[in-house]
Amino acid sequence: MSSINVAMIGQGFMGRSHSNAWGQVAKFFKTPAKPVMHTVFGQEAENPQAFADNWGWQNASTDWESVVKDPKIDVVDIVTPNFMHAPPAKAAIAAGKHVACEKPIAGTLAEAREMAEAANKAGVKTAVWFCYRRVPAVALAHQMVKDGLLGDILHVRAQYLQDWADESVPLVWRFKKELAGSGAHGDLNAHIIDMTRFVTGEEITEISGAISETFIKKRKLMTGVSAGNIAAGLQGTEEMGDVTVDDTVLFLARFSGGAVASFEAARQATGNQNRNGFEINGTKGSLKFDFERMNELNYYDATRPRAVQGWTNIMCTHAGDHPYVANWWPDAHLIGYEHCFTNEAYDFLSEIAGETPTVPIPTFEDAYQTQRVLEASALSAAEKHAINMDDVK
Amino acid sequence: MSSINVAMIGQGFMGRSHSNAWGQVAKFFKTPAKPVMHTVFGQEAENPQAFADNWGWQNASTDWESVVKDPKIDVVDIVTPNFMHAPPAKAAIAAGKHVACEKPIAGTLAEAREMAEAANKAGVKTAVWFCYRRVPAVALAHQMVKDGLLGDILHVRAQYLQDWADESVPLVWRFKKELAGSGAHGDLNAHIIDMTRFVTGEEITEISGAISETFIKKRKLMTGVSAGNIAAGLQGTEEMGDVTVDDTVLFLARFSGGAVASFEAARQATGNQNRNGFEINGTKGSLKFDFERMNELNYYDATRPRAVQGWTNIMCTHAGDHPYVANWWPDAHLIGYEHCFTNEAYDFLSEIAGETPTVPIPTFEDAYQTQRVLEASALSAAEKHAINMDDVK
Amino acid sequence: MSSINVAMIGQGFMGRSHSNAWGQVAKFFKTPAKPVMHTVFGQEAENPQAFADNWGWQNASTDWESVVKDPKIDVVDIVTPNFMHAPPAKAAIAAGKHVACEKPIAGTLAEAREMAEAANKAGVKTAVWFCYRRVPAVALAHQMVKDGLLGDILHVRAQYLQDWADESVPLVWRFKKELAGSGAHGDLNAHIIDMTRFVTGEEITEISGAISETFIKKRKLMTGVSAGNIAAGLQGTEEMGDVTVDDTVLFLARFSGGAVASFEAARQATGNQNRNGFEINGTKGSLKFDFERMNELNYYDATRPRAVQGWTNIMCTHAGDHPYVANWWPDAHLIGYEHCFTNEAYDFLSEIAGETPTVPIPTFEDAYQTQRVLEASALSAAEKHAINMDDVK
Amino acid sequence: MSSINVAMIGQGFMGRSHSNAWGQVAKFFKTPAKPVMHTVFGQEAENPQAFADNWGWQNASTDWESVVKDPKIDVVDIVTPNFMHAPPAKAAIAAGKHVACEKPIAGTLAEAREMAEAANKAGVKTAVWFCYRRVPAVALAHQMVKDGLLGDILHVRAQYLQDWADESVPLVWRFKKELAGSGAHGDLNAHIIDMTRFVTGEEITEISGAISETFIKKRKLMTGVSAGNIAAGLQGTEEMGDVTVDDTVLFLARFSGGAVASFEAARQATGNQNRNGFEINGTKGSLKFDFERMNELNYYDATRPRAVQGWTNIMCTHAGDHPYVANWWPDAHLIGYEHCFTNEAYDFLSEIAGETPTVPIPTFEDAYQTQRVLEASALSAAEKHAINMDDVK
Repeated sequence: MSSINVAMIGQGFMGRSHSNAWGQVAKFFKTPAKPVMHTVFGQEAENPQAFADNWGWQNASTDWESVVKDPKIDVVDIVTPNFMHAPPAKAAIAAGKHVACEKPIAGTLAEAREMAEAANKAGVKTAVWFCYRRVPAVALAHQMVKDGLLGDILHVRAQYLQDWADESVPLVWRFKKELAGSGAHGDLNAHIIDMTRFVTGEEITEISGAISETFIKKRKLMTGVSAGNIAAGLQGTEEMGDVTVDDTVLFLARFSGGAVASFEAARQATGNQNRNGFEINGTKGSLKFDFERMNELNYYDATRPRAVQGWTNIMCTHAGDHPYVANWWPDAHLIGYEHCFTNEAYDFLSEIAGETPTVPIPTFEDAYQTQRVLEASALSAAEKHAINMDDVK
Repeated sequence: MSSINVAMIGQGFMGRSHSNAWGQVAKFFKTPAKPVMHTVFGQEAENPQAFADNWGWQNASTDWESVVKDPKIDVVDIVTPNFMHAPPAKAAIAAGKHVACEKPIAGTLAEAREMAEAANKAGVKTAVWFCYRRVPAVALAHQMVKDGLLGDILHVRAQYLQDWADESVPLVWRFKKELAGSGAHGDLNAHIIDMTRFVTGEEITEISGAISETFIKKRKLMTGVSAGNIAAGLQGTEEMGDVTVDDTVLFLARFSGGAVASFEAARQATGNQNRNGFEINGTKGSLKFDFERMNELNYYDATRPRAVQGWTNIMCTHAGDHPYVANWWPDAHLIGYEHCFTNEAYDFLSEIAGETPTVPIPTFEDAYQTQRVLEASALSAAEKHAINMDDVK
Repeated sequence: MSSINVAMIGQGFMGRSHSNAWGQVAKFFKTPAKPVMHTVFGQEAENPQAFADNWGWQNASTDWESVVKDPKIDVVDIVTPNFMHAPPAKAAIAAGKHVACEKPIAGTLAEAREMAEAANKAGVKTAVWFCYRRVPAVALAHQMVKDGLLGDILHVRAQYLQDWADESVPLVWRFKKELAGSGAHGDLNAHIIDMTRFVTGEEITEISGAISETFIKKRKLMTGVSAGNIAAGLQGTEEMGDVTVDDTVLFLARFSGGAVASFEAARQATGNQNRNGFEINGTKGSLKFDFERMNELNYYDATRPRAVQGWTNIMCTHAGDHPYVANWWPDAHLIGYEHCFTNEAYDFLSEIAGETPTVPIPTFEDAYQTQRVLEASALSAAEKHAINMDDVK
Repeated sequence: MSSINVAMIGQGFMGRSHSNAWGQVAKFFKTPAKPVMHTVFGQEAENPQAFADNWGWQNASTDWESVVKDPKIDVVDIVTPNFMHAPPAKAAIAAGKHVACEKPIAGTLAEAREMAEAANKAGVKTAVWFCYRRVPAVALAHQMVKDGLLGDILHVRAQYLQDWADESVPLVWRFKKELAGSGAHGDLNAHIIDMTRFVTGEEITEISGAISETFIKKRKLMTGVSAGNIAAGLQGTEEMGDVTVDDTVLFLARFSGGAVASFEAARQATGNQNRNGFEINGTKGSLKFDFERMNELNYYDATRPRAVQGWTNIMCTHAGDHPYVANWWPDAHLIGYEHCFTNEAYDFLSEIAGETPTVPIPTFEDAYQTQRVLEASALSAAEKHAINMDDVK
C-alpha cells in the first residue's frame, strides 16, 4: 500500500483530536493509502517535540512556512486559532497541498472567500473539520432526507447550547475577538449552520431577525492564557478585562426550499453541556438529533399506520446498516466524540484518492457559505432588521 | 355552604372542558361556595338543551344578552369563538358579573384593552383560561423561580408545536381570520407567551425579529363548518378556499430582566401532537416543561455538587408537596388535560371569595399584555424589523 | 334512554375513583343505558351521607345486606377492604345482580374460586377493577399482540414498584394480613399478573422460583387507622406493632406459549412512585409500558428496514386510532388515572347490555386465575422451589 | 520513563479492543511505565503477522507457550475463547508474569478456582476484563454507594439483554458449550454479576430460583466458523446442528446486606441491542445505569426536599468530577465502548507499579466469586430449587 504524508500546523485541544484521528484511521479503516504522521508544527513555547512524542508524529517543527512547502508533505492539516487559519492554508494551497482546516474556516468572511477561491483555482482537495457530519446518526439523517423520507421540509430548529462560561471563567482567548473572531456564534452556530445545510441539502436565503448578547461583559485577566487553562482550573487575576465577543446569538432564517428556521448558540445555557442538535419537520416525517446522545437519531415516520406512529429512537450502531459503524464495534457498542474525526480523516483520504466519501465532505467552498450565514446573522442582530443573503458575499 | 351561580356563553370543544370543570370542582376541592351550573347559552342550531342535559346545566338559553344580565347569575364564563368574546364580556362586566373568558382574550388588541379597562373600572373579578398555568408542574415552576432557585434568568425558549393541519384538513373556522383572529399565533403562541410571563414573572420588552408563514394557502371548502368536523373526519368539497391566517409564527424577544428568548408556534410540525413547553436557563438552575409529559418538570440545579448535577425529572404528583395534587389522587397517579380547568375553576372561586389563589390568575389585564406581544410580533414579521414593545398599546 | 341503577358497597380512596367513574361515564360516552348513582353503603363512622352528597349518590345506607338485595338495584359495585369482598359479592350474585368488585378479587383463593363459581352458575355479569387494562396504551398493546405484531412471545418482564412505605409510615391496614390479605403481592403483583395475562393472551404454567421479604418488620401503632391517615400525615404512636404482610415479592414464571417471565412488586423501591409496567419481547417485535407515562406505549418493530428500526414512542392519544380516546379530548391532550375507571364503567355497561366491550373485561373467573398465580408464587417463596400451576386450584 | 512489555495471547474481536487499549493508553494517560506492545500470539490460520502490523505489535508468534515464558515479557494478556483461558494463564503465572484475562475467567468453576489460587500463591497481579467497571458512570456509582449515598441497599435489578441471535444466525462458536462454556449466562450474566458486586460492595449469598432456556435448539451448520462470520453476513449451510448452550438465563438472588435481586441475560430480547444495566434501590437513594447510554448515570436522591426529588440524569463527563474523564475530552464530548478497556489498561499498569487504581480491579479471585454465582444459578435452574451459595465452591 502506498503512503501519504501528513503535516499538522498547530496543537492545543483540537491538535489532540486530529492526531488521534490520523493515528487511528488505518487501524480501523481500509484507507486507500497509509497516512504517515510526518511533521507537527508548534510554537517553541508549546514544546512541539513533546507533543510529537506523545502522539506519534515523526518530526516536530517550529517553522510552519517550511513545513507547508516541504515537498515530502502531501496533506496539511491546520488547527491553529481561527485568525491564524488563512496564512498557512493559502501557503499550502500555493504549494499544491491538499488542505484540511479547523472550523470556522477563517476569522473574517473575506479570508474565507479568498481561501475557497484559491483552493478552487489550484484544484487541491479541501476539508473543513465540521466533524459532526460524520456522527453516524447525522450522516444517516443526511441520507434519509436525500432519500425523500421527510418529504418537503417545513421547519428547521437547531441549537448548540453549552454552559461552561459562567463568571468564574477568566478571560481566555475564546472571549477576545482578535483571537477567536467571534464567541458562541463562530464557535457553535458555525456547526449547526453546517449541519443543517448538510442534512437538508438546502441553502439559507434570508436572515429574518437576530439577537446577539454578551451577558458577562468583564472577566478576570490571565497571563499566559490558553484553552488548557480552564481545564487546569486557573482562576485569573483580580484585575478585569473586557469580553469582546458574544455569549449567545439567536437568529431566524429561511431555507431555499421554503422552510422556516431558528438557530441558537449559547455558553451559559445552564444544564446543557454540549447540546448540539436539530429537529427537522417535513411533510412526510421528522428527525431529531442531540449530540449528548450522539449514537441515537430520532425519526418520526408520518407515513406509517397512525395507530403506531411515534418518535422512533434509532440506535445508529448497526454494522450492516449505518454509516461508518462496520469499522468500529458490534451493535450498540457505542462510539464517542473522537470517532467523528477519524471518520472524516478516512473520507478525506478517500477523496484525495479519487474515491467517493461516505457522505459529502465540507469543502472550503462549503465553509465559505456557512461563513456568509454567520456574517449575515451578526449583521441582522446589529441592525435590527432582516437581511437578504444575496446582499452578503 | 353558600352557592354561586354560573352561566356559560358558548359550547363547542371548550364548552365541554369548562362544563366538566364546573361539575367536578366541588367534588375534589373544598370550594368557598358551591358552584351551581345554572344556565348554558348556545345558538339554536347547536341544541343547547341537549348540551345542558348531557353536562348537567340546569337551564339552556339561546339569548345570551338576557343570560349575562340575569340577576341570578354571579359568574359568566365565555367560550365563544375569539371574535365573539368582547360583546358578552363587556355586557357581563356592565351587569357587575365576575367574568371568565377563553383565550386569547379577544380578536383584536383594541377589544382586549377595552375589556381589561372595563373590568378594572367595574371592579369585577376576571379570569382568562390560560389553563396551563394550573398544570401542577407549571405552577411549581412559577413557585421555584419566585423562590430564586434559578438565579437570574438568561434564556427562555418556548414552543407550542402541533401537526394536525396537513393538507387533508378542510377550511374549518380556525383557518379564517374573521372567525379566529389569527392562526397558530393566537391559538398557540398566546399560551406560551402567557406561560413564560407567568413562570419568569417578567414582561417582554422587545420583539427582535419574527417570521410568519402560511404553508398551505388553499384548503377544501366545507359547508356547515365546525371544530367537530375535523374529529368527525369530514373532508370538505372539491372546491378550494383561501386560508387567511398563519400556519406558523416564530419570533425572538427580550425579557425585562435581560433574558433573550425565542418563541415558535406551528401546526405542521410533524411528530409534535401537542408539544407545549419551555426551557428556561438561569444562573443558578434551569427548568424544562413539555405538556406531552405534563406530570413532569425537569430541573437542573447548578448549585449541587458538580459530580451529581444533572437534569432531575420531578414527577409533580406528591400530595404534600406539589400544587393541586392533594385534591386528586395518590402519588404518581397521573392527572390529565381537563384537570387544569378544574384547578382554575377552584382558584377563580377562591379569588371571588376574597381568598388567595394557589398561583396568580391570568386576569383580563394579564391577557391584554399577552395580546400586545402577539400584536407586536405579528408586526415584526410583516415589517421585517425589531419592534420596541413600548410602541404597541 | 333506559337507566340502570348502581349501588356501591364501601367508600375510601377507591370509592372516590368509582364514584367519579359512574358520574362521568355518561357525559363522555354513549352508554347503552344511563347509569344512576342510586345508593352508597358505608359504615356509620364513615358518614356515608356526606360521601353521597359530595359525589352525587342519591341515597346512603349503613346496611349493605339490604342494599345488595334491593330490587331497584341492577349493579352492585364492591370497594370494601379485600377480606370483605366475598360476603357482599356472593349475596349480590344470589340476588341476581351484576357485580363489579375491586381487586384482588378476594382475601383467599378459596373465596375467589367460590365467587367465580357462583357468578358462572348464576349467569350474572362480573367485572373486577383491574382497571389498567383500560389505559389506552395497554388496550392497544393487547390489540397489537392479538394482531400478531409481536410474533411468538419469548420474554415477559413486569414490575410494579412503589416507594411510599419507608419506616415513617405507621401500621395502617395495608400492613396487616387479616385486613389486606397480603402486602405488595396482592396489591401490586395482582395488577401486573392480570395485565400480562391480558396483553399476551396466555396463562402462567409454572412458578420457577420466588422471594418474599418484609424489610420493615415493625411499625408505629395507630388508633383509628384508615388509608387516608397516610395522606393526612398521621404519624402513629410511639408503640410498635408487627407488620404481617410482605414488602416485596419477586418471582420467575413460564407462560403457556413458552415465554419466560419475571415479576416484581415492591413498596420501598426508592424513586419509583408508581412504576407499573411491562416489557414483552416477541420474535417480530417488542412492547414496553410504564404507568408513570401512561399515555405512551413503546413499540419495537423488528420487521422494519434495519436502518430505521428502533423503539417507537407512541402517544396513544389519537381519537381515530387509539381505544377510548375519541370519547375524551383532542390529540395529545392527556388523560389520567381516573379515566381508566370511567373506561371500565363504560365497557361493563356495554357488556351488561349485551354489547362487546372495547377489550375483554376481567371477570371473576379471570380474577380467580390471577389469584392462583398469587397463591402459587407465595408458596414458591415459602418452600424455596418451583411450583407447577396445575397443583394450585 | 521506564517501559513494560506486553504480550497478547489471542486475537479476534476482543483482540482488537485490547490492542487498541494498549496502543492508546499512554497517549491519554500518564502511565507509571510506558507499555510496549511486544508480541501477539495467534494461530497460523489467523495470520498473526497481519494482525500485528495493523495494530502495532512489534512481533507476532504462533507459539504461545514460548511467549508466556519469554523473560522479556512483563504482562500477559489473554483473549482466547473461554475454554482456552486457563492453560496460558497458569503458564504465565508459573513464569511470574502479571496476567490480564478476558471474562468469564474460565470455562469451568474448577479452572477458575485453580487460576485464582495460583495467582494468589505466586503473588502476581491479575486483572479480568470486566471492563464495564470502568465506564465512568459505573465507577461513579461504585463511589457513590461507598460514600453512603444510597443508605442500605434493598433492591438490585440487573439485566444484560441483546437481540442478535435470531434463527438466521448460524451455529457459531458462541452456541457450542465445549467452546463457549455457556451461552448468555457466561457471556452476559457474568458482566452484571461482576458489576453489581462491584457497585454494591456485597456478595451474593443465595440463588432463590432460576430459569434457563434455549429458544432456538438447532441452527445451520457452518464450516470455518468464527465470530467475524456473523458480521460478515455468512449464512451457514442447509444442514442443522444442535445448540448446546442457553439463550437466556434469569435468576433471583439475595445479597449479603439483605437486598433481594433479579438477574437476566438474553440474546433474543428484541429491541435491546446491548442493554447492560442495573437499578439499585437503597433507603436513601437509587441508581440506574444502561450501557446503551453509557455516558449517563441516573440518581434519585431521597434526601432532597420532596418537592424537587426526581431521577437526576448525570452526564458523567466532567473532567474535574468524574472518574477517567480528565484524560479524554471536554465536558459532554462523549466517550464510547473501547475507552473502558483503555481505562482498565491504565489502572492495571498503576496496580503493577504499586499505585492505587481509580476503582478496584476485578482480580482472578474476584472473577472466581462471579463464576461461583454463575455455577450456582445454573444449578438452581436445573434442579428447580433455591441454592445456598455456601454449597458451591
